[in-house]
Amino acid sequence: MVRLGPNRYGKAEVHVVTVGRGAAPDGGDVLRDRRVSTSLSGELAATHLVGDNRHVVATDSQKNAVNVFVRRLGDVEPETLALALGRHFVDEHEHIDRARVAVEEYPWVRLGASPHSFARSGQYVRTTTAVVDGELGVGVVSGVARLVVLTTTNSEFWGFARDALTTLPDTKDRMLATEVSARWRYRSAGDAEADWSAAWTAAYQELLAAFSQTYSYSLQQTLFAMGRRVLEAVPAICEVRLVLPNKHHYLVDLEPFGLENENQVYYAADRPYGLIEGAVLADDAPDADFAWD
Amino acid sequence: MVRLGPNRYGKAEVHVVTVGRGAAPDGGDVLRDRRVSTSLSGELAATHLVGDNRHVVATDSQKNAVNVFVRRLGDVEPETLALALGRHFVDEHEHIDRARVAVEEYPWVRLGASPHSFARSGQYVRTTTAVVDGELGVGVVSGVARLVVLTTTNSEFWGFARDALTTLPDTKDRMLATEVSARWRYRSAGDAEADWSAAWTAAYQELLAAFSQTYSYSLQQTLFAMGRRVLEAVPAICEVRLVLPNKHHYLVDLEPFGLENENQVYYAADRPYGLIEGAVLADDAPDADFAWD
Amino acid sequence: MVRLGPNRYGKAEVHVVTVGRGAAPDGGDVLRDRRVSTSLSGELAATHLVGDNRHVVATDSQKNAVNVFVRRLGDVEPETLALALGRHFVDEHEHIDRARVAVEEYPWVRLGASPHSFARSGQYVRTTTAVVDGELGVGVVSGVARLVVLTTTNSEFWGFARDALTTLPDTKDRMLATEVSARWRYRSAGDAEADWSAAWTAAYQELLAAFSQTYSYSLQQTLFAMGRRVLEAVPAICEVRLVLPNKHHYLVDLEPFGLENENQVYYAADRPYGLIEGAVLADDAPDADFAWD
Amino acid sequence: MVRLGPNRYGKAEVHVVTVGRGAAPDGGDVLRDRRVSTSLSGELAATHLVGDNRHVVATDSQKNAVNVFVRRLGDVEPETLALALGRHFVDEHEHIDRARVAVEEYPWVRLGASPHSFARSGQYVRTTTAVVDGELGVGVVSGVARLVVLTTTNSEFWGFARDALTTLPDTKDRMLATEVSARWRYRSAGDAEADWSAAWTAAYQELLAAFSQTYSYSLQQTLFAMGRRVLEAVPAICEVRLVLPNKHHYLVDLEPFGLENENQVYYAADRPYGLIEGAVLADDAPDADFAWD
Repeated sequence: MVRLGPNRYGKAEVHVVTVGRGAAPDGGDVLRDRRVSTSLSGELAATHLVGDNRHVVATDSQKNAVNVFVRRLGDVEPETLALALGRHFVDEHEHIDRARVAVEEYPWVRLGASPHSFARSGQYVRTTTAVVDGELGVGVVSGVARLVVLTTTNSEFWGFARDALTTLPDTKDRMLATEVSARWRYRSAGDAEADWSAAWTAAYQELLAAFSQTYSYSLQQTLFAMGRRVLEAVPAICEVRLVLPNKHHYLVDLEPFGLENENQVYYAADRPYGLIEGAVLADDAPDADFAWD
Repeated sequence: MVRLGPNRYGKAEVHVVTVGRGAAPDGGDVLRDRRVSTSLSGELAATHLVGDNRHVVATDSQKNAVNVFVRRLGDVEPETLALALGRHFVDEHEHIDRARVAVEEYPWVRLGASPHSFARSGQYVRTTTAVVDGELGVGVVSGVARLVVLTTTNSEFWGFARDALTTLPDTKDRMLATEVSARWRYRSAGDAEADWSAAWTAAYQELLAAFSQTYSYSLQQTLFAMGRRVLEAVPAICEVRLVLPNKHHYLVDLEPFGLENENQVYYAADRPYGLIEGAVLADDAPDADFAWD
Repeated sequence: MVRLGPNRYGKAEVHVVTVGRGAAPDGGDVLRDRRVSTSLSGELAATHLVGDNRHVVATDSQKNAVNVFVRRLGDVEPETLALALGRHFVDEHEHIDRARVAVEEYPWVRLGASPHSFARSGQYVRTTTAVVDGELGVGVVSGVARLVVLTTTNSEFWGFARDALTTLPDTKDRMLATEVSARWRYRSAGDAEADWSAAWTAAYQELLAAFSQTYSYSLQQTLFAMGRRVLEAVPAICEVRLVLPNKHHYLVDLEPFGLENENQVYYAADRPYGLIEGAVLADDAPDADFAWD
Repeated sequence: MVRLGPNRYGKAEVHVVTVGRGAAPDGGDVLRDRRVSTSLSGELAATHLVGDNRHVVATDSQKNAVNVFVRRLGDVEPETLALALGRHFVDEHEHIDRARVAVEEYPWVRLGASPHSFARSGQYVRTTTAVVDGELGVGVVSGVARLVVLTTTNSEFWGFARDALTTLPDTKDRMLATEVSARWRYRSAGDAEADWSAAWTAAYQELLAAFSQTYSYSLQQTLFAMGRRVLEAVPAICEVRLVLPNKHHYLVDLEPFGLENENQVYYAADRPYGLIEGAVLADDAPDADFAWD
C-alpha cells in the first residue's frame, strides 16, 4: 500500500516588471523587476489520487494573483509583496493551508540624469520567501544570491588533517573568491511596518564588510563571521544560512618560462570547487523550520 | 550571542571519467562519466570560530579520495561508489560524523560496432546520493533528472476552483509536457549485494510507463501514479519524491489567418511554468529524513 | 559623415511544436519541435535614419508567418519549411531583398508502443538555414549541433612545433572528445523534391563513422575526414564547415597514492579547451558565400 | 575530389586573473579578470590531410603564451594584450600567417576602502579582438556585451507594413529593452600608444547616452543612433556593429480583474524576441573585413 506524502504546487517564475511613473524623489520612474514563484499546499489528496480538482487553485490563477497584487501594491519591497500574496491564498481558499511565495528581485540603476532609462546592475539578486501557514503563522526569509566577491590576500589555509590521501600543501597566502548565497530569517515576520529595505541593505553591507575585513584561516571562518555580523547588526534577524562555493584560483606555474609568479597570475578553475555551507543563529532564535520550507 | 548551526563542507562536481578497457561483454570499452560531490559534517566548530583546521579534511583531499575510489572500484554502479566513499570518510576521520556523497552519472552509448567510440546520450542524468551517518546509519536516494517527456493528448484539466482571479478555461484535451526530476529512497541501503542497476532501470521504466499510460486529469495525478508504480514495481524502494514542472504548450490562435488549429500547432512557453512537487510513500516506509539531507 | 552598413532584423527563436495526429506509419502521432528564427534585409534605410517604418515587416508579423506556414505545411523537413518561409518574405514584400530563415529541430522519440507519448532525445540538434535572395538565388545550409562524441583511444598527438613556450609532452595514446557543430551547404537548394531527410541522415552517419573510424594524429585530421566523408557520401553537398572543441580529458595522477593509472581515470576539464575550425569543399563547389550569411 | 578550405585552431577561454599588487593610485590592488581565446591559421594542410603536426603550435603552447604575456605585460588594456599575443604568434612561427586573439574582460569593483577585496560588477563584459595578419596587417575590434538597458517610455512603433499576416497594433508608447552587443573597429590598430581605455570608455558612454536620449520610432533607429554617436565621439573608430535583441515587455491585461493598467505592469517575455542587427560606418572607413574574422 502506498500513500501520498508532503506535496505542493504552484506557478514558478512569473516575470513581472513594474514602473512607478514619476515616483522617484526627483520625478523619475521607479523600476521593479521581479520573478515571483508561488506554491500552495493543503487538502489536495483528491487531485493526486483521482484527478478531482475542486480544491485546486489553478497555477494560472496564481499567476493572475501575482499580476493583480503587483498592480495593487505598487512600489513595495519584495517582502511586502510576498506576504500579501501568501496571506491572500491562505485567506481566500479554505482548502489551502500553506502558501509559499518566493521573489527574486533584479536591480537596475538609472542611466545618468535620464528619468526613464535604466541599466541592469548585475551584481546580485535580492531574494525573499514568505511562508504563510494557517496554523504555524508567518515566516520571512530574505537574502542575496549571485554576489561574487574576491580577496587577493589575507587568506591562509594550513594545519588541516593529513593522511595518505592528502596532497595539498599548506598555504599562508591565497586568493579567496566565492559567490555568496545568503538567506536570513526574520524573528517576527508579521509586522507590516517592518522596514524591509533598511534591514536588507544593512545585512548586505555586513556581508560585504565581513568578507573584506576578516583575515581568514578557512572559508568556514569567513562564513561564520558573515553570519555573526548580520545578526549583530540587524536584531530583527535571528538566523543566517550561507552557501559559499570556494572558487579556486590556482597560481600558474611560470618557472618553465624563467618567470617568477609572486602571487600575480592565477588560473580561475571551473570545476571541481569547494562548497561550504553553514548556519549562524542568535542564541534566542525561535524555532521556525517551516520558514525555510 | 550567536552560535554555529548545522554546517557541512566538501568538494563539488569532481568530474571523473573512467574507462573499463575491454570490459564490455563483446570486448569493447565501458565508459563511466560522473560528477561526484562530497560533503562532510562533524566536530567542526573550531574552524568556524577561530580558523583552527585540525579537524578539517581538506576538500582537495576529498577530491583525491574520489579519484582513488573510482580507480580502486572500477566499473561499479554509482550507488556502490557513493556508499564506499561515504563510509571511508566516516571510518577514517574520527571527527567526521556524517558524509554525504552525491553522484551524477551521464549516459553514453557505443557508436555502432566500434569498441572505443561513444556518443553522449542526453536523455537524462542518473543520480544517487548516499548519506553515511556514524549514528543513524546509511541512507541511499537514487533518481533521474532532466528527463523531458510529453504526451500529445490524454490530458484534461477542469473542475478546478474558480474565483474572481480565475480566467483559465476548462480543457478536455491538452498537451502535457514536463521535465521529470525523481528521487527514490531505498528501504535498506546497507546491503552491498543490492542490484542497484536493476532497481534503477526498473524505476526509470515505471516512471515512463506511468507517464505514458496515465489518462491525466491533473499533473498531480500523473505524479502520484509515477510514484505509486515505482513503489509497486521495486519493493526495495520505500519513498519517491518528484518535481514536475508543467512545461506549458499553448495552442496558437490561427483564426486571424483563416486557419483552423485542431490541436496541431503549439507555442512552447518558457516562463512562467507550473511546478508540481510531491512525495509518495510505502505505508511501512521507515523514517529516515537524514537520507534526503 | 556616417552611413548605414549591412543590416537585417527579424524574430528569433519562435518555439513551435506541431503534432501530426495519427500521421505515423503505425497510426501514432508525429511530433516536430522547432525553434525558427527569421531575418530580413532590403530597403530599410528609412527606419534606421528617421524611424519611418513603412518598409518594415514587423517581427511580430514574421512570427505569425512562422505559425501559419508550420500549420499549412504540416509534417515537412525543416529545409522545406525554411525555404517556403524565406520565399514568402521575398515574394510578398517588394522592399525585402533577402530573407534568412534558420530552424533548430529537437528530436523526440516515441515511448514504447504509446501512440501519443514521447521523450526528448538530447543527443543532438538538427539545424538548417535557408537564405533566399532576390538576386543571388537560394542557399541551404543544414547541419547538426551539440553532438558530443568521445573515443577512448586511437588518438595520438606528437611531432608538433616546439619552442620556449612548449611544455606539452608527446602522447601516443590519448582520449579524444568533442562536441560536433557541423554545417553543410547543398549544391543546389532550389529543388523542391530534394530528399532533405535522407541527405541529413546520411551526412550525420558519415560524421559519426568518420569520428569513430579515423585513427587520429590530430583533431584537425579528424575534422578533415569528417568533412570528406560527408562530401563523398552525399553528392548533393558541396561544402562542410566544422567547429570542434577539443574537450580535454587529463589522466589523473594516482602515483602519490600508490596506484597505477593505465589510461583508466580521467579528469574532464571545462576550460580552457582547444578549438578546431575548418571547411572541406568539393573541388567543383560553386561560390555561394551568401548561403553562410 | 575534395579540398581543405579556410581553417584555424587555437585555445579558447583561458581564464586568467592577474593582480597588480599595490598598483592602484591609493596603494590598493588592481584586478584583471580575463578570458583569452587564441586562433591561428597558416600552412596547416599537412595536419589536416595526413596528421603531420610539425607546423602546429599546440593549443597548450598557445595557453602558455597567454600566461606568459599576461605576466610580462602586467596591468595593460585588453587591446594591448591581444595585439602583443597576436604579433608573437605570427612573428615567432613562420608557418603561421594569421593570429586572432579575443579577450573578454570582466569588471570588478573595490569593496569600499579595502585595498584587497572586490565584488564582480556584472553590468557588462568588455571585449576585444585583435587580428594580426602577416600580409594584411593588424585589425582591432573592441566592444561591449551583455549590457542590458531599458527605457520605460519614449518609444513608439507604428506605420509598419500591413498585410494578411499582420496582427500587431500600432503603439505610441511602449517599453523598450535590449541587451546590447556592440563591437567597434579602430581605424588604425597598430599604434602602441593608443589610449584604448579612454576610447573604450567614451564609446561605452555614447552607447548609453544614445540609448537613453533617442526618442525611438524603431529599435533600428536607436541602433543607428548608437553607432553614429560612437563614431562622432571617437574619431579613432571607423565602424560599429550592433546586435540588439528586442526584449519584449508586454502589458498585462488586468481588465478581467477590474483594474486599469496604465503602462505600469509588464510581462517580460523570454522567447521569441526581435533581433536587430546592423552596422554604421564612417564615410571614409578603410576596408578591413579580416578584422571581423
